[in-house]
Amino acid sequence: MRLAELSERSGVPSATIKYYLREELLPAGLRITATQAEYGEEHLRRLRLVRALIQIGRVPVATAREVLAALGDESLDQHRRLGAATWALPHGPAPDESDPATGAARHEVDRLLADLGWRFSSRTASSSPPYRMLVTAVTALMKLGYPCDSAHLTPYARIAAQLATRDLDMIEERTTPMEQVEAAVTLTVLYEPVLLSLRRLAEAEESNRRFGKGNG
Amino acid sequence: MRLAELSERSGVPSATIKYYLREELLPAGLRITATQAEYGEEHLRRLRLVRALIQIGRVPVATAREVLAALGDESLDQHRRLGAATWALPHGPAPDESDPATGAARHEVDRLLADLGWRFSSRTASSSPPYRMLVTAVTALMKLGYPCDSAHLTPYARIAAQLATRDLDMIEERTTPMEQVEAAVTLTVLYEPVLLSLRRLAEAEESNRRFGKGNG
Repeated sequence: MRLAELSERSGVPSATIKYYLREELLPAGLRITATQAEYGEEHLRRLRLVRALIQIGRVPVATAREVLAALGDESLDQHRRLGAATWALPHGPAPDESDPATGAARHEVDRLLADLGWRFSSRTASSSPPYRMLVTAVTALMKLGYPCDSAHLTPYARIAAQLATRDLDMIEERTTPMEQVEAAVTLTVLYEPVLLSLRRLAEAEESNRRFGKGNG
Repeated sequence: MRLAELSERSGVPSATIKYYLREELLPAGLRITATQAEYGEEHLRRLRLVRALIQIGRVPVATAREVLAALGDESLDQHRRLGAATWALPHGPAPDESDPATGAARHEVDRLLADLGWRFSSRTASSSPPYRMLVTAVTALMKLGYPCDSAHLTPYARIAAQLATRDLDMIEERTTPMEQVEAAVTLTVLYEPVLLSLRRLAEAEESNRRFGKGNG
């Protein structure tokens, strides 16, 4: 297919595709004439993955290039491929290591992971972006005196495990490894506002049930 | 107490407190001398609420002033107070009404709320910020061809309801109505990164369980 069709089928504007080609995120097409190239299904799949990382995941171009290189490593199992892509996603501010509260928060998070038996997370803690994201969030809660010890966090973690099971079910519906990586990035990112808005709606329902007067 | 003590007990810098005083988000203290004023416990509680809205919730100052005025309305029940504060929180981009996919997304969201029996959310849909946030998120998923019909969203909504029950339990631990409003704002906002990071950690655990090779 030509660039115009690649654009139409992917929903990515031609100018954006040209930018990805220049940045070598997308391999060049087969040159037909001096100004035209032919693209295949492989380009379409790769383009969807690049878009998932950059447009949806807001991963910087240089990082996306590293992720794509890592994904090409034949020796990686699919778990590591999914990790290479999702750990590249932005995770908010890193913990402030100069703040004593960070150490206390890290202690609670480590205890939580041990209580849950989350061995992969425990083992990768020092290099894991979502682990650092959790430490930052728990530090903020602790400093305001809000409950965020392991006992308070455990039920939230159990609920998160239910979400993860559903997420992985959707990811496994995709047939090829690269489509699964694309789905992991897209679903991780785009289901976040779904989840947060559903929580806010559910809070309003629950608040109405508990505190509403004659307006249920 | 003097300004310095109010700052120390609240953890809010003196300069920030003075800014809130100038913006009339915080009532003036009892004037003692030309340069000093005395503040009470009421100021401390109000200051914590103002900080929750502005620093944690990132609510604009003008909006925070409106929320505080609404909260002072004696005729409001506690459900409406909680709503006045949490609906003022940022909810991301509004749905693009010129996009035909928005109508389809709204249809799925309305069906979801009906299936769930979430009557408060159904009734307030047209004015509800979290409803609009959900429509925006579902539109984005639909346009990429990802599953987000009512059947796919229902399990996520049930999980959100579990979260909301826990959230309201924590809010109800606070004794005064205004402390509950402060807790609703703080917990809604600060538990979001907790939840999202736990979901990402749980996804990594589940991915390792399903796809990892000899690294469990």
